[in-house]
Amino acid sequence: MPEGPRGFVRDLRLRWAAEEAGLAYEVRTVPFDDRATNHLDRQPFGQVPFLSDGDITLFESGACLLHLARRSETLMPRDPAGEAETLQWVVAALNSIEMVTVPWWFLGLSGQNENGLDGWVNQRLGHMERVLGERAWLAADRFTVADLLMADVLRVPAVRAHGERPATEAYVERITARPAFRKAHADQLAHFAAADRLRKAQ
Amino acid sequence: MPEGPRGFVRDLRLRWAAEEAGLAYEVRTVPFDDRATNHLDRQPFGQVPFLSDGDITLFESGACLLHLARRSETLMPRDPAGEAETLQWVVAALNSIEMVTVPWWFLGLSGQNENGLDGWVNQRLGHMERVLGERAWLAADRFTVADLLMADVLRVPAVRAHGERPATEAYVERITARPAFRKAHADQLAHFAAADRLRKAQ
Repeated sequence: MPEGPRGFVRDLRLRWAAEEAGLAYEVRTVPFDDRATNHLDRQPFGQVPFLSDGDITLFESGACLLHLARRSETLMPRDPAGEAETLQWVVAALNSIEMVTVPWWFLGLSGQNENGLDGWVNQRLGHMERVLGERAWLAADRFTVADLLMADVLRVPAVRAHGERPATEAYVERITARPAFRKAHADQLAHFAAADRLRKAQ
Repeated sequence: MPEGPRGFVRDLRLRWAAEEAGLAYEVRTVPFDDRATNHLDRQPFGQVPFLSDGDITLFESGACLLHLARRSETLMPRDPAGEAETLQWVVAALNSIEMVTVPWWFLGLSGQNENGLDGWVNQRLGHMERVLGERAWLAADRFTVADLLMADVLRVPAVRAHGERPATEAYVERITARPAFRKAHADQLAHFAAADRLRKAQ
């Protein structure tokens, strides 16, 4: 994995969820360089992460999080209303926020002065600022996997640096101060550093 | 609702799912014109649809579909592996395909010659073409809510018109030929036509 994305690769979401829930897990590595070829047999878009849980394998970090959430009440309440609210905000993070912020960030990489998604990203992040100004947690008045995912979407440096949204910034600070995030983040960086050492030794 | 989006508004996903599953439902209307103000109290991004199911209310069409899927084995198998595979492809439709196709379509509306998301959309749709060339259904060797959502994402005219992807085109044709889609689509158009007549009569 190149330096740039380290600390932001989406396997962190799964590590973080497992740490929050106290689920035992093991991390495996797949080669980065040939991901456009043989990797497609395991993940049809050439991406990480994918998860194995007994006989079940699945990809898409959002799907993996919802799968893990079924295994732990720490991640998702068991009552139908709390579960529905958690599900709603997990999908909002994936399909109302990340669907705008990720392509916006991607276009920004080109270095052009105008970003055709600026207006849309401002609108969506403004809506989230309103929501986060009114509540501490997205669902069920407590931490859930929806906060984990939304904070992970909103902590991207380009998103945090874009505009003034104090409620959002405080939310991201608070959620990413959780010990489970700190450990998952440190472990991801250590994992890549160890892979570097191994490669250099070969 | 203006003419343009009719037949593509996302409440169609919920109608379609309810028709597939034989779930009774009732459609209500919210005003389009003031959706940026008071509508935000019900849906924080000013969008439709939202769903009421007894005491539970939720927004995000993807979340509503997964909620309905819990109520009907027609939409999602009950075995853990089949459920995980369905979940995986629902999230793939939302976060790997629609996350690229919708911003790409949005940028295309500006009429500029270059679309900064062209390469990415080609890559993702190419990956889907490979998947759909190898299987009839996305999950569990049968129709699931994942096919419903993926076909709805891929049937957008700009996406269908962009490039040659025969397996994808045949998939979209086949899934949208289902009677439940035909009924949901016709009902949505009839719903908006009736709202027009009501407004003109007032």
